[in-house]
Amino acid sequence: MMAPAGSKKNILQRLDAGEIIIGDGGFVFALEKRGYVKAGPWTPEAAAEHREAVRQLHREFLRAGSNVMQAFTFYASDDKLENKYFEHVEEAEWAVQVLKTTNKPVAATLCIGPEGDLNGVSPGECAVRLVKAGAQIVGVNSHFDPMTCVKTVKMMKEAVTKARLKAHFMIQPLAYHTPDCNRQGFIDLPEFPFSLEPRTLTRWDMHRYAREAYNAGIRYIGGCCGFEPYHIRALSEELAPERGFLPAASEKHGNWGSGLEMHTKPWVRARARRDYWENLKPASGQPLCPSMSTPDGWGITKGHVDLMQQKEATSQLQLKALFEKAKSSH
Amino acid sequence: MMAPAGSKKNILQRLDAGEIIIGDGGFVFALEKRGYVKAGPWTPEAAAEHREAVRQLHREFLRAGSNVMQAFTFYASDDKLENKYFEHVEEAEWAVQVLKTTNKPVAATLCIGPEGDLNGVSPGECAVRLVKAGAQIVGVNSHFDPMTCVKTVKMMKEAVTKARLKAHFMIQPLAYHTPDCNRQGFIDLPEFPFSLEPRTLTRWDMHRYAREAYNAGIRYIGGCCGFEPYHIRALSEELAPERGFLPAASEKHGNWGSGLEMHTKPWVRARARRDYWENLKPASGQPLCPSMSTPDGWGITKGHVDLMQQKEATSQLQLKALFEKAKSSH
Amino acid sequence: MMAPAGSKKNILQRLDAGEIIIGDGGFVFALEKRGYVKAGPWTPEAAAEHREAVRQLHREFLRAGSNVMQAFTFYASDDKLENKYFEHVEEAEWAVQVLKTTNKPVAATLCIGPEGDLNGVSPGECAVRLVKAGAQIVGVNSHFDPMTCVKTVKMMKEAVTKARLKAHFMIQPLAYHTPDCNRQGFIDLPEFPFSLEPRTLTRWDMHRYAREAYNAGIRYIGGCCGFEPYHIRALSEELAPERGFLPAASEKHGNWGSGLEMHTKPWVRARARRDYWENLKPASGQPLCPSMSTPDGWGITKGHVDLMQQKEATSQLQLKALFEKAKSSH
Amino acid sequence: MMAPAGSKKNILQRLDAGEIIIGDGGFVFALEKRGYVKAGPWTPEAAAEHREAVRQLHREFLRAGSNVMQAFTFYASDDKLENKYFEHVEEAEWAVQVLKTTNKPVAATLCIGPEGDLNGVSPGECAVRLVKAGAQIVGVNSHFDPMTCVKTVKMMKEAVTKARLKAHFMIQPLAYHTPDCNRQGFIDLPEFPFSLEPRTLTRWDMHRYAREAYNAGIRYIGGCCGFEPYHIRALSEELAPERGFLPAASEKHGNWGSGLEMHTKPWVRARARRDYWENLKPASGQPLCPSMSTPDGWGITKGHVDLMQQKEATSQLQLKALFEKAKSSH
Repeated sequence: MMAPAGSKKNILQRLDAGEIIIGDGGFVFALEKRGYVKAGPWTPEAAAEHREAVRQLHREFLRAGSNVMQAFTFYASDDKLENKYFEHVEEAEWAVQVLKTTNKPVAATLCIGPEGDLNGVSPGECAVRLVKAGAQIVGVNSHFDPMTCVKTVKMMKEAVTKARLKAHFMIQPLAYHTPDCNRQGFIDLPEFPFSLEPRTLTRWDMHRYAREAYNAGIRYIGGCCGFEPYHIRALSEELAPERGFLPAASEKHGNWGSGLEMHTKPWVRARARRDYWENLKPASGQPLCPSMSTPDGWGITKGHVDLMQQKEATSQLQLKALFEKAKSSH
Repeated sequence: MMAPAGSKKNILQRLDAGEIIIGDGGFVFALEKRGYVKAGPWTPEAAAEHREAVRQLHREFLRAGSNVMQAFTFYASDDKLENKYFEHVEEAEWAVQVLKTTNKPVAATLCIGPEGDLNGVSPGECAVRLVKAGAQIVGVNSHFDPMTCVKTVKMMKEAVTKARLKAHFMIQPLAYHTPDCNRQGFIDLPEFPFSLEPRTLTRWDMHRYAREAYNAGIRYIGGCCGFEPYHIRALSEELAPERGFLPAASEKHGNWGSGLEMHTKPWVRARARRDYWENLKPASGQPLCPSMSTPDGWGITKGHVDLMQQKEATSQLQLKALFEKAKSSH
Repeated sequence: MMAPAGSKKNILQRLDAGEIIIGDGGFVFALEKRGYVKAGPWTPEAAAEHREAVRQLHREFLRAGSNVMQAFTFYASDDKLENKYFEHVEEAEWAVQVLKTTNKPVAATLCIGPEGDLNGVSPGECAVRLVKAGAQIVGVNSHFDPMTCVKTVKMMKEAVTKARLKAHFMIQPLAYHTPDCNRQGFIDLPEFPFSLEPRTLTRWDMHRYAREAYNAGIRYIGGCCGFEPYHIRALSEELAPERGFLPAASEKHGNWGSGLEMHTKPWVRARARRDYWENLKPASGQPLCPSMSTPDGWGITKGHVDLMQQKEATSQLQLKALFEKAKSSH
Repeated sequence: MMAPAGSKKNILQRLDAGEIIIGDGGFVFALEKRGYVKAGPWTPEAAAEHREAVRQLHREFLRAGSNVMQAFTFYASDDKLENKYFEHVEEAEWAVQVLKTTNKPVAATLCIGPEGDLNGVSPGECAVRLVKAGAQIVGVNSHFDPMTCVKTVKMMKEAVTKARLKAHFMIQPLAYHTPDCNRQGFIDLPEFPFSLEPRTLTRWDMHRYAREAYNAGIRYIGGCCGFEPYHIRALSEELAPERGFLPAASEKHGNWGSGLEMHTKPWVRARARRDYWENLKPASGQPLCPSMSTPDGWGITKGHVDLMQQKEATSQLQLKALFEKAKSSH
C-alpha cells in the first residue's frame, strides 16, 4: 500500500474529486535548525545558496506523504503573487485586494485565529469575502496550534455554507501548543522564536489533528512552523485508510509504536500499542518552568508608531529603552 | 573568524595540543525524524539505502562546527570494534574486556550516570579501570541530560586524577531534560521514544552545557540522541572565544538572538539580548501535562528472564500480559 | 487605625453611604477541615452540636475585618428564606420566584460564571431580572475563582446600568484557582472536594482580588469555600486606605511581609517587601501533577435522570456502574 | 469504635506497650492563619492573650485523634527545657549538651533531613549521640515533607539498631511538599512563609504518610507547620485498624470520600471510592507557576556575619542592599 505514481491532476481537480491533499511542513523553521536560514530576517536565500539542503528537505516531506511542493519563497515579496496561492496575511481586506488585482492565486489562507483578523473581522466573514473575491480554497496558516486552527476553519466553513457559497478548505497550523496565545498568535509568546521546544507536538498529537481536520471537512491538511517530516508522516498515516496508501517513509515507522515489540525491556515492549501513546501526558522534565506564558504585547495596537517596519537595525538607544521596558514587564 | 582549513592532526594529537573537539549529534534520532531510521530496531541501513540523506546530515553537523564525523554504524555490531572508539555500553567490565582483546579503540564512553554502571561500579572506578585497560579518552554518552552527564564526568576526572593516571575526557549527552530518570536512564521514561518533544533542550540550554563541560575540563564535547545541527552550533558559538573561530552555520545565526533587532514589533525586538534568553523559563503550553514522570522499571533487575534479548517479535499472548501489567501500573 | 465601634446602620444604609462591606469566608469548608461538618451532605448541624467551634470561627472572621455575620444555615432549606439574603442558586428564574413570593431578601447572588446560568441566561440578563424582581444587592457567589467572579459581576453591572436600573453589587468567590472550569464550576473538577489544596489562593492573590473588585465598583466583597480568616484579613488590608482602618487581626500581621525584617537569614529578610510577594509565582512542589484538569461532566445536561436528587445512598450496583464509567474516562 | 477513655499511662509507657501515638499539628502556622500569631517573630503570646482561640485549636486536634497536647511554647526559650521534650534544633551537638545538663527531656527531635545536621553529621550518627546522651525517643520535626522525614528517621533507626542501642522513634514533618529543598529545608524556599499554599498536602497524602511511617517502625507520628486538624484525622483514620478506634472527628468524615455517595451528580458520586483519591494527581489551577523552585541561600554558610540574630529590625540601608541582591538573583 504505497503512494501511487504521481497523477497529472492539479490541486483543484484533486480536491474536486474528493481527494485529501497532505501539505508539507515549515521550511524556514526546519532550515533554520539545519543552519541555512537566519531567524529574524527569515529570508529564503538558501534556495540559491544551498540547493542540496533545500532539495533534501523537499525530498523528506514528499517521502512523508506530502502531495505538494510549496515553493520556498517566503518573504521574497515580489515573486509571491506569481505563486498559485499566498499566505501569511493578517488582514482579510488586503488579501481581497490581491485576489482582485491578480488572477493568479486559487488559494488564500489567513494568519488568524477564532477571534478574527487584525481589524476584528470574524473568521466566517473573512472566508466569505475571500470566496466572493475569487478564492477557490480558503483557510488559515501559522500563528496557532492545530486544534485552534481547526476551530477557526470550522467557523469559516459554516459561514461559507450559510452564505450559499462553495469552497475547499485548507489548514496549515504550527507544530507548537499555543493555548495561551492572544489574538496575535505565537509571535507574542515570550518563547518566540528561540525557546519554543517544550511546546512541540508529538506525532500522536498529529494523528489527533489529522482526524479532527478531516472530520471538519478540511481536505488540504498541512503544516507550518515547527512541522518536521515525521509530523507530516503522522498525518499521512492517520489518513491512510481514507487515502488508500501509506507514505514511503512509513517503511521506517511501525504503526502506533509497533516497532518497539522487539525491545529487550518488557516495559518498553508494553509501549507498542495505540492506547499507550494516545493517553500519555508527556512530561516536560522542566520543573522550574510553567505550563503557560503571558503573551507580550505591551498594550500597543495596530497603527502605533512602534509597529512601523524597521528600515535598519534598532539603534543602541532604542534598544536600551526597550530592554528597560521589557525588564519591568517580566 | 571562520573555521581554519582542516588540520591533519588526529584526535589525540588535537587533545594533547589543548584543542577543544566539538562532537556531532544523534544520527539515529535525527534520521528517524527525517524518515530514514526505524525506531525500535534503530539500525543504520540508511547509510546504504539513502546515502544522500545521511550525507546531508553529516554536512549540517560539520557546518555547525563539529570536528568529527562519527561513522553511522550504531547497532551494526561486528563492525563496531573496527572504529576508533566505541560507546553504548552499560557495564565497565565488558568495556574493559573489549579494550584488552583489541587494540583498536582509543576512546571508551559508558552509558552511565552519577550512580554508576549496571553492576553498581561508581563512575570514578569505571573510569580508572578503562584508563588502566588502555583507553586514552574516557567519558559518558547518551542516557542522561547534559548537566547530569557533566556531573558524572567530573566524578570520573576526580578519580582518574586521584589514581595518578592521565586521560582526556569526553561527553555526549542527550538533548532531553531527564531530572526524573533513575539509574537506567531515559529508556525507562514513559515518554521514550515517541513523546520526548517537551523535554527538548533549547539552544540556550546548550550554551550553558558547553560552558559547564569546558569548565569541568572536558575537551571532547558532543551530543547524542535529540541533538540537531543547531544544538551543535550553539556549543560551537559558546566556545568560539576559546576555539578562535565561529562555525560556518553562524552566518545564519545572530549572536544571542541579535537577528531579531529588525523585527517590526518592539516587544520582539526587545528579545534581541543575551539576558532575555538566558533567564527565560520556557512554558510547555501543555497544562494537562506534568513536569516530571515516574520512570518504568517494574522492579525488575538485571538477569531477570524478562530482560533477555528477544529473538522475534513479542507474541500476542506475551503482549497481552504486558499490557495488563502496564495498565495497572499507570 | 482600628475598626470603629460597630455602627447601627444596616447593610443597605452602609452601601448607600458608600461604605465597603467586607464579607466573611466559607463556613462549611472551614468547619469541615476543623472536624465539624461532613463533606457530601454539608449540613450545618454544628451550629447546634458544637457551638463553641462555630462561635470561634465567627470571631476569627470578625477579627479579620468582616462587617457581617452570615447565619451558618447553608442547606438548612426551610429557614433559608428567613434570612436577609440567599445564595447558592444556579438559575435566575428560581431566584426571581423566591424574590416575588417573599419580601424578605434584599440581596440575591447566583452561582454563575461569565457563561451565565444553567438555562444559558447571561449574567447581565440575570442581574436585570433580579433587580426588577426587587433585589437591591445582586452578584455572584461560589463556583469560580475571584477573577472569574469579578468578570461576571462586571457584566452584571454593565447590563443593570444599561437598563437604567440601580443596584449594589456583591461578590463571594472561591479561594481556589479555577481557570479550567466549564460552565458548571468547581464541582466538576476532578479535585472536588478533597484534593483542592494546590489550588488555594495566597493572601497576595487576595490583595489583587480586593483591588480588582473595588475598581469594578463592587462594594460587598467577601468569600466562599476555601476562604480562611487570613484571606479575609488580606481583603481588609488591601482596602484599609479606603475604609480608613485596619482589622484587629492585623496586629498579628506585618504589612506585605514586613514581619520578616528581623529574620536571621538575610535572604528571608529580603522577602519583607511588596514587590517580592506580588511577583512571586509560587511552585506546587508537585512535579508529577499537571497545572490544569479536564472537568468531569460526561456530557450529561440538566434534566437527565442521573441528576435527580438521590433519596438514599447510591446502591452498590449503581456505584459499580459509575466506577466503571469513571475509570474509562480517566 | 471510638477513642477509649483516656488512660493514665505516660508517653513512654504507651510506646513501651506498643501503642501508636498520634501527635498534633502546627500551632504557629495554624494560629497565624486564624489571626493570632505573627509570622516573623512567631511568638506564642496568644496562649495568654487569646486563650479561647488556642483552646479551640487544641480541642480540634484532640478530636482529630491526637493523643498528646504539646504546650504552645515555641520560641518561648527559657521555658523550653521545662517540657518533657524539645525540638527545633538544627545541630545534634547542641541537643546533646541540653540532654546532659538537664534531666528533663525524654524526647529529642532534630530539624534535619537525609543530609544530616548543619555540621554535616549524618542522621544516623545524630540519633546515636542523642540516645547515648539519654534521649528515649528520637526523631525529626519540621523543615521537610513527610516522605523525606520518614526517610531520615529510617536512617536514624538503622544506625541506632546497628549500634545495639534502643529507642522509640518520632516524626513531625511539614504538611508541604518540599522535593526541591536543599539541606536547610523549607525556610530557603522562595515561597516561605506566605505563598506555600500550592504545596499543601491533601488528606490522602496523609494516609500514605501514616502508613509509610508505621511500616518504618515509627510509633510517634505527628505533624508540624501546615498540619490542620483534618490532616491529623487522616493519620488517625489510616491507623484506625492498628489502634482499634476511630477519632471523634470521623463522625463528620466518610471513609475515603464515602460521604459523596448521595451527591446529585453521578460523576461526583463516582468519586466516593479509595482508588479515585489515591491515584488522582491534583492540578494546581496555576498554569503560570512552575512545579519546583530554586531555594535561596546565596552561598552563605554557617557562621557568616549575615546570619547573626538580628537585635532590631533591619535598617533601611541594610534592606536596600538585600533587595538589590535579591532582585539580581531572581
